[in-house]
Amino acid sequence: MEVGVLDVDLCGPSIPRMLGVSKQEVHQCDAGWVPVCVDRLSLMSISFLLDDPDDAIVWRGPKKTALIGQFVSDVAWGELDVLLVDTPPGTSDEHLAVLEGLKRHRVDGAVLVTTPQAVSTGDVRREITFCKKTGVKILGIVENMSGFVCPHCSECTSIFSSGGGEELAKLTGSKYLGSVPLDPLLSESVEEGRDFLQAFPHSATYSSIRTIADTVLTSLEP
Amino acid sequence: MEVGVLDVDLCGPSIPRMLGVSKQEVHQCDAGWVPVCVDRLSLMSISFLLDDPDDAIVWRGPKKTALIGQFVSDVAWGELDVLLVDTPPGTSDEHLAVLEGLKRHRVDGAVLVTTPQAVSTGDVRREITFCKKTGVKILGIVENMSGFVCPHCSECTSIFSSGGGEELAKLTGSKYLGSVPLDPLLSESVEEGRDFLQAFPHSATYSSIRTIADTVLTSLEP
Repeated sequence: MEVGVLDVDLCGPSIPRMLGVSKQEVHQCDAGWVPVCVDRLSLMSISFLLDDPDDAIVWRGPKKTALIGQFVSDVAWGELDVLLVDTPPGTSDEHLAVLEGLKRHRVDGAVLVTTPQAVSTGDVRREITFCKKTGVKILGIVENMSGFVCPHCSECTSIFSSGGGEELAKLTGSKYLGSVPLDPLLSESVEEGRDFLQAFPHSATYSSIRTIADTVLTSLEP
Repeated sequence: MEVGVLDVDLCGPSIPRMLGVSKQEVHQCDAGWVPVCVDRLSLMSISFLLDDPDDAIVWRGPKKTALIGQFVSDVAWGELDVLLVDTPPGTSDEHLAVLEGLKRHRVDGAVLVTTPQAVSTGDVRREITFCKKTGVKILGIVENMSGFVCPHCSECTSIFSSGGGEELAKLTGSKYLGSVPLDPLLSESVEEGRDFLQAFPHSATYSSIRTIADTVLTSLEP
């Protein structure tokens, strides 16, 4: 399966670091920018276009919208089965720009990620309203930062309340895709750009992520 | 001391819930919108203007900029000693709009909040670049979500790496204001709009927050 990943969090592009390719640059070919290959993923992010990773993207909406349009249309994605778009939180320029850029393609839907507490589910409720307004199907809701299992005593603590994601799914008639616990090993892997799924295939966190991914994949129309 | 709080996170306004006043509405007077009073704070947030808290703010940059301008100039703040502006992460429309709105006032500076891991300090490095470009003084850096003390065994775990905030401060020549641990009691208070500082005055988290607040206050010019 050919998968593209498009990071449209222009002010906080984190995917390149998480995948261990933050030092890469993108090049131009006749068909446009050539995305960076990581294993079998093709990745595009604004961080590949910055000379210095500390450069601030002090851009207003219209400029952001233009760049995201280019990311969709002027990148040599090749033949993709799936394009995964990682957006910042919210319901604003980036989200509208992605939908506009993808107008001529079939959008399968949105996976919404929340943390358990109400300050976060409140934001995601507004994102659900956004999806309804713009006709984007909701593939499901993921709860991130669910419970923390202490590595010293194995007791679980709900640092950020609990159950908010599942409750939100019920309330809004969305599918609940599952939860990802707070796991220091996952944070460490993300931090160092190491492949968590390869390093810890027997962890509970692996199995949560795997289940969520499988559920999303089987829910996509062929 | 008269303090105003302006929440300009238009897509994720969380301050009203954290202060337990999410159900309030703002009214108009001759001098503009009357902010909501919580104890001795005057608070303004977009969530007071929404009929339904689930309403999505599907606004592009220019509309956001206009509203934030109104929040600064058309709110009957009265005589304030300090106006605290809570922005979303990033370096975009909201940040530019606040600075523009405050052009005629003296801006004391920015308090930057990061979590310990590099994906977050990277974002804050870009915010530092933004402050330098726009001439905003950096009052200091706070590290949030630092270490978690297990309530069952009292052992501390650095869930999201450790020391990133202090290191960032050193690297960028900024003042390090301190860290706030992951504390389930703090999350719970925020969730329920209860006053954490009143409820848990003897906790380590209270003392961290207090130290940070005191340091910021004493660094402000009279």
